[in-house]
Amino acid sequence: MEGEPTLRLRIFDLNCWAIRYLSRRRQERVRLIGDTLRHEGFDLVLLQEVWSEQDYSELKVKLANCYPFSHYFRSGVIGSGLCVFSKFPILDTLLYQYSLNGYPYMLQHGDWFCGKAVGLPGSRAGVTAPLLSPSLQLHAEYCRDKDAYLPHRLVQAWELAQFIRHTSKAADVVLLGGDLNMHPEDVGIRLLRGWTGLRDAFAEATHFEGCKNGCTLVPDNCFTNNSELLPFPLGIRIDYILYKAISSFTVKCEELKTTTGRAPGRDIPFSDHEAVMATLHIQRQGQPAGATLGTSDPALADVVTEARTEVCAGLRAARRQRYSTGRMAVLALLLLLLQAAAALGTLAGLGTEQPFPKLSFCLLAFLALGVLVLATGLHLFHTMEVKKLHGTEDQMGMVLRALQERP
Amino acid sequence: MEGEPTLRLRIFDLNCWAIRYLSRRRQERVRLIGDTLRHEGFDLVLLQEVWSEQDYSELKVKLANCYPFSHYFRSGVIGSGLCVFSKFPILDTLLYQYSLNGYPYMLQHGDWFCGKAVGLPGSRAGVTAPLLSPSLQLHAEYCRDKDAYLPHRLVQAWELAQFIRHTSKAADVVLLGGDLNMHPEDVGIRLLRGWTGLRDAFAEATHFEGCKNGCTLVPDNCFTNNSELLPFPLGIRIDYILYKAISSFTVKCEELKTTTGRAPGRDIPFSDHEAVMATLHIQRQGQPAGATLGTSDPALADVVTEARTEVCAGLRAARRQRYSTGRMAVLALLLLLLQAAAALGTLAGLGTEQPFPKLSFCLLAFLALGVLVLATGLHLFHTMEVKKLHGTEDQMGMVLRALQERP
Repeated sequence: MEGEPTLRLRIFDLNCWAIRYLSRRRQERVRLIGDTLRHEGFDLVLLQEVWSEQDYSELKVKLANCYPFSHYFRSGVIGSGLCVFSKFPILDTLLYQYSLNGYPYMLQHGDWFCGKAVGLPGSRAGVTAPLLSPSLQLHAEYCRDKDAYLPHRLVQAWELAQFIRHTSKAADVVLLGGDLNMHPEDVGIRLLRGWTGLRDAFAEATHFEGCKNGCTLVPDNCFTNNSELLPFPLGIRIDYILYKAISSFTVKCEELKTTTGRAPGRDIPFSDHEAVMATLHIQRQGQPAGATLGTSDPALADVVTEARTEVCAGLRAARRQRYSTGRMAVLALLLLLLQAAAALGTLAGLGTEQPFPKLSFCLLAFLALGVLVLATGLHLFHTMEVKKLHGTEDQMGMVLRALQERP
Repeated sequence: MEGEPTLRLRIFDLNCWAIRYLSRRRQERVRLIGDTLRHEGFDLVLLQEVWSEQDYSELKVKLANCYPFSHYFRSGVIGSGLCVFSKFPILDTLLYQYSLNGYPYMLQHGDWFCGKAVGLPGSRAGVTAPLLSPSLQLHAEYCRDKDAYLPHRLVQAWELAQFIRHTSKAADVVLLGGDLNMHPEDVGIRLLRGWTGLRDAFAEATHFEGCKNGCTLVPDNCFTNNSELLPFPLGIRIDYILYKAISSFTVKCEELKTTTGRAPGRDIPFSDHEAVMATLHIQRQGQPAGATLGTSDPALADVVTEARTEVCAGLRAARRQRYSTGRMAVLALLLLLLQAAAALGTLAGLGTEQPFPKLSFCLLAFLALGVLVLATGLHLFHTMEVKKLHGTEDQMGMVLRALQERP
C-alpha cells in the first residue's frame, strides 16, 4: 500500500451569486474570481449560480490556459448556473434535473425557473483516478421556521443520493461540491451522507483555516443579508465539499479552507457565499476496498424514516392544494356554463324586458375564463407534485424495508 | 468457464395501451394480461402504458404469488405508465424523466402530460447477477415523413444512452425493454446501441418465433390503425428487448417470441402492440470480460454526427419559435400599454366629444392579456427547449471529439 503514487487534488467550490442585473458588482466579482482561479491553479473548480452564459464564456477564455477543460450545464428557463473547470480532461457529462424544484408562481423565489440540477462531469485525473465530481445546488431555504420547501428539498436530496449511488459504482473517487442550502445537522444532509457514504471534508480535514465552524454564509460578508443570520451570529455552513473513495482507492482531506468575508488580499468578497477550498490526497490501496455505497448503520433507518415523514407531510399539503385548485377550476367552469346559458336565453328572447348588461357580462366571463385557465394549470402542477412526492415516499419505503430486513 | 451455473431468465415486455376511457376493451385486456402472466410465470415483466394506477393495483394483487416484487413509476401529470413485476427482489429504483418530451399545447398527442421516463429497478437474480432492467417509452412518432418530434426523440435516446452508461457500470447484466417508437435502422436506435453497446435480442436470438421481422405493430392486430401501416405492409418493429453483460458474465438470447396479432389461444390481442418475450442465458465467465460501454467503431462517430445534425436542426427550429413567441408577447404588451394610455387619456378628459366604446375596449384588453400570458408561457417553454437541445448538442460534440481523438 505504501509507495503507491499519491495524487494531490486541489478543489475550489463557490456559489458565485452572478445574477445579471440583480447581483451587486457582478462583473467586478466574476473578473476577480477568474483572476484568482488563474493565479491559484486549482485542479478542479466547481461553480454555482453562474446564471449568465456570457460570464461563463469570459471565464472560459480567461482560464483556457490553466484549465483547458470546462463544461457549462444548460437547463430550465434561466439555466442551471452550474459550470466546471478542470485541469484534467472531462470525458463525459450527465445532467440530472430534480423532478421538484419549487413553484412556478413563487416568482420572488425564482428557484423553479432555474432548473436546478446536479451536473456530473466524468474525468480522469492523472493516471490514477476516474473521477466523478458532481456540482450542484438544491432549493433555497427562505424561512427556516416555516419552511414550505422542505419536502421539495428532501426529494432533491434523495434524488441526489440515488443519482450518486447509481452513477458512482464504477468510479474510483466521487467528489461533490456545491451549495446544498442545508445546515450540517439537517435531515437532508444526514440522508445524503448516510445513504451515499459521502464524507464531509470539513469534518475530516486534518487542517482547517477559515470562518469558525466552516461557515460559508457569514455576517462579515458585506453582501450577506444580516437579518437572515440573526439567529446564527457566527453564520451558517451550507456549502460543502463531500467525497468518497470507491474500489481500490483511499481519499484523505489534508486541508480545508474558506474565505473569510472577503477575497484574499482584496476588500470585496467573491460572492455572498464564502468559497470552499479543499486539498485531497488520493492514493491507490493494495487491495480493493469494496464499494462503500452507504452506511448500514441502524441510524440510517431513522434518518430515512424522518425524511419520509417530512415527505408525507408535503404529500398531504400537495394533495390539499391539488384538491382546492381542482375545485376552483370546476367552479369557474360552472360559472362559465351558467353565463353561456344566460346568453343563450337572452338570444332566444327570454327576459327582453330588461336591458342586457353586456359590459359586466363580458368582464365576468373573462374573469371566469382566467380563473379556469389558472386553476387548471395549478391543478396539473400539483398533480405532478403529488406524483413525485408519492414516488419518493414509495422509494424511501422500499429502502426502509430493505434496511430493516438486513441482519 | 464451463461448469459455472447458468441462469435462465424469461422476460416479458409489452406496451399495454391501457388508457382509461380511451383504450378499447381495456379492462378485459388487462385481466387477460394478468391471467397470462400468472400462468406463464416469467422472471421479469416490463410493462408500459399502464396509465391507471388502479390497473396496476389489480395486476399487483393478481400476481402477488408468482411475482412477489413489483414497482410502479410515478411521474408527469398522468404518470409514466411504467411498471415492473419480478420474481427477484427489487432492491432499489431510480426514475429518470427525459428533459424534453413534446409540447404541452399538442393536446392531441399528449406525450408531454405523460412524463415519459426510464424506470430503473435494480435487482438481484438468484446469486448470479445484479441486474439493471430499465423499462421505458420514448416519444411517439406521429408522422414519419415530417417528424416534428425527431429532435426530442433523439434527445431522449441520447439521455437514455447516457443514463445507461452512467448507471450500469457496476451491474453484471443490463436488460432494457420497452417501446422505443423507432424502427430498427433509425438513427436513434443506432445511437442508443452504438453508444451503450446494448445488443438487440431479435438480431441475436438463436431461435425466433412470431411476426415476420419481429414486428410489434402489425396489420393483423385488430386494434392497430391500419392506415398508419400502409407504407409497411408487414408492420413495424418498435418494441425491443436489448441487453448486455458487463463484468464477468455472458448473456445469450436463446429464444425470442412475439405474439402474432392476438393473445395465445384467444381472439383478442393483449394490446395494439405485440408482446415481446425473450429467454436469456446468463453465465459467469472465468475472467472479468471488462466493461463494454459502447462500440469504439468509427461508425459510431458517424451515427453521433448524424444525430447531432438532427438535434441542430431542432435547435434552429426551437430558436425560431422562441423568437416568434417572444415577439408576440412584446406586441401584446405594447397593445396593452397603448390601451392603458388611451384609457388614461379618456379619464383625463381628452376626446370627450365621442362616446368611449367600453365593451370593445374591454374585449380588446382581455384579448391582449390572453395573448400576452399565452405567448409568455410559450416563450418560457421554448427557452427551456433551446437550453436542452443546446446542452445535448454540446454533449454530443464532446463525445465526438473524444471519439475522434482515440487512436
